[in-house]
Amino acid sequence: MAVSQMRGKQSVEFHEAPHIIGSASVAGPKEGEGPLGEAFDLIAPEAEFGEDTWEKAESTMQKEALQTAVRKAGLSLWQIRYLYGGDLLAQLTATFFGNEEAGVPMFGLYGACSTCGESLTLAAMAVAAGYADHTAALTSSHFGSAEKEFRFPLGYGNQRPLSATWTVTGSGAFILAARGGHVRVTGVTPGKIVDMGVRDNMNMGACMAPAACDTIYQNMMDFNRQPQDYDRIITGDLGYVGQTILTDLLKEKGFDISEQHMDCGIEIYDREKQDTHAGGSGCGCSAVVLAALVLPKLCQGIWKRVLFVPTGALLSKVSFNEGQTIPGIAHGVVLEHC
Amino acid sequence: MAVSQMRGKQSVEFHEAPHIIGSASVAGPKEGEGPLGEAFDLIAPEAEFGEDTWEKAESTMQKEALQTAVRKAGLSLWQIRYLYGGDLLAQLTATFFGNEEAGVPMFGLYGACSTCGESLTLAAMAVAAGYADHTAALTSSHFGSAEKEFRFPLGYGNQRPLSATWTVTGSGAFILAARGGHVRVTGVTPGKIVDMGVRDNMNMGACMAPAACDTIYQNMMDFNRQPQDYDRIITGDLGYVGQTILTDLLKEKGFDISEQHMDCGIEIYDREKQDTHAGGSGCGCSAVVLAALVLPKLCQGIWKRVLFVPTGALLSKVSFNEGQTIPGIAHGVVLEHC
Repeated sequence: MAVSQMRGKQSVEFHEAPHIIGSASVAGPKEGEGPLGEAFDLIAPEAEFGEDTWEKAESTMQKEALQTAVRKAGLSLWQIRYLYGGDLLAQLTATFFGNEEAGVPMFGLYGACSTCGESLTLAAMAVAAGYADHTAALTSSHFGSAEKEFRFPLGYGNQRPLSATWTVTGSGAFILAARGGHVRVTGVTPGKIVDMGVRDNMNMGACMAPAACDTIYQNMMDFNRQPQDYDRIITGDLGYVGQTILTDLLKEKGFDISEQHMDCGIEIYDREKQDTHAGGSGCGCSAVVLAALVLPKLCQGIWKRVLFVPTGALLSKVSFNEGQTIPGIAHGVVLEHC
Repeated sequence: MAVSQMRGKQSVEFHEAPHIIGSASVAGPKEGEGPLGEAFDLIAPEAEFGEDTWEKAESTMQKEALQTAVRKAGLSLWQIRYLYGGDLLAQLTATFFGNEEAGVPMFGLYGACSTCGESLTLAAMAVAAGYADHTAALTSSHFGSAEKEFRFPLGYGNQRPLSATWTVTGSGAFILAARGGHVRVTGVTPGKIVDMGVRDNMNMGACMAPAACDTIYQNMMDFNRQPQDYDRIITGDLGYVGQTILTDLLKEKGFDISEQHMDCGIEIYDREKQDTHAGGSGCGCSAVVLAALVLPKLCQGIWKRVLFVPTGALLSKVSFNEGQTIPGIAHGVVLEHC
């Protein structure tokens, strides 16, 4: 049997599936006060992480997350052959400055909040093909740097509609290898750009839900599966608004995922107490929830197989101000207990 | 023999090397007037490419480049399994809007002007591992959108020092497959972030030369080669200033590449007549020169083996204004006639 094989229209199945042998989550104080607070590896006492800019704070989170994951995998940094990383900022400022000291050959990625899925996909592909013994996937987002990048600097104190999500201050890192650990990446479904013409940058859930629908549908077609073949189908950051849209869209295509669906943006905050409106977002959101909540359940065998689908909204300040739509993209990663 | 193998510290050798079976170059009018004008597939009569914003113009270039390359490969768009693409703009505006109609599952990449090398590396890796029958690598840059993104909007009419490079308006696309065509990707050396502390955003050559040196040196160590094992060692956009620094740095490490070195940024403009100072730059620069100049020479067997090393300067408006340095990165791709 080949080591891996193309499945259907856009998926790959790994027969010698790469293992996630280490992971780490680093979060800000607000995330630390949320329902997953106890599960994070590191919570900073303040969102600046000891730095004088939001961007440097985000770089510091990445550095801490990578080092912690590498340590938990029982490795040293020099043993990581390739690093796949990204963030939400223009030109990946947080990622490149956060990782220059690491000295690991690096692929910079941008898929908005879907980047955690993109990085896991490529890191798994490299290990499964024998291009690397160990790879790392690393993403982050920061509320302060993201608001400045996409909407308004925090000092403006702008108001937020209920459809808005709250960008998670956090970074997650994952170490992949041919063996070790109790979670394997058995397949991937890289996503297409899906544009339904939504233009509201305060309603990211609506922008991304059609892309999540497209990727989840294609994953089930390509692998010939039903929703119940997964213990959970976990989107990145659709939030409450996007969740409703996603389940409706998939019902139209003949799949009812209401039993299996979970959203990292919904899990990370306490809706009643934390004033985060539609939920959390950012490529740190799905990453820290994967590290702190999803992987432990898979490790313990409480869940046997999940479909992890980080979701991204493809906009920039410039594209938004020039009146462009906000297309979405979502990358599917199949994770299994072993 | 395995299909591929890790080589040395950071390289991969493909024993069943993917072939480049189609390529295309789309360029702006200034590039069309340069020494490579005759060789481009398409030259737009004006830099707006019929659009009302620079960003849309850049998206249009990508669309044209991809369609042309796919057609030249004798394929249709739906036969491309994965697309690896990027540009210089925040959140990859040109790439995502340029490719949403294509409907190809997509990996967004950012490595500044090195992205052409990053995209070729990942596209080749996917084909060599059997994850895809056909992949595409696609990058672009645009003088108007890049000046606005990194320095000043064109309307300011700011002055440029002689060390400044001119961002190329152009897009290059490459189609990879297991067989066909006369050029193979036989190896890759993904690069590390290298920071020598340079802070001058009007002297990108100096920012990137140390990274180019690091990747070229590592490539020769990993594959146990000497400069003369390559007909050409081709950097992306070091320009005249960066070229001198690169050859000096490599001499210190015991390699004299002055006979083999070529720089896409130097090739693309006529220094005397086109007022482009240190040369061309941008992730469209190395891409169009690869498609219009390098691949034809390899196809015809005039060159047997080249090391193609697109180079990127890792800065953003924000990182620059916050006083950060400008690190570089460079990805090496070994191309051989077959």
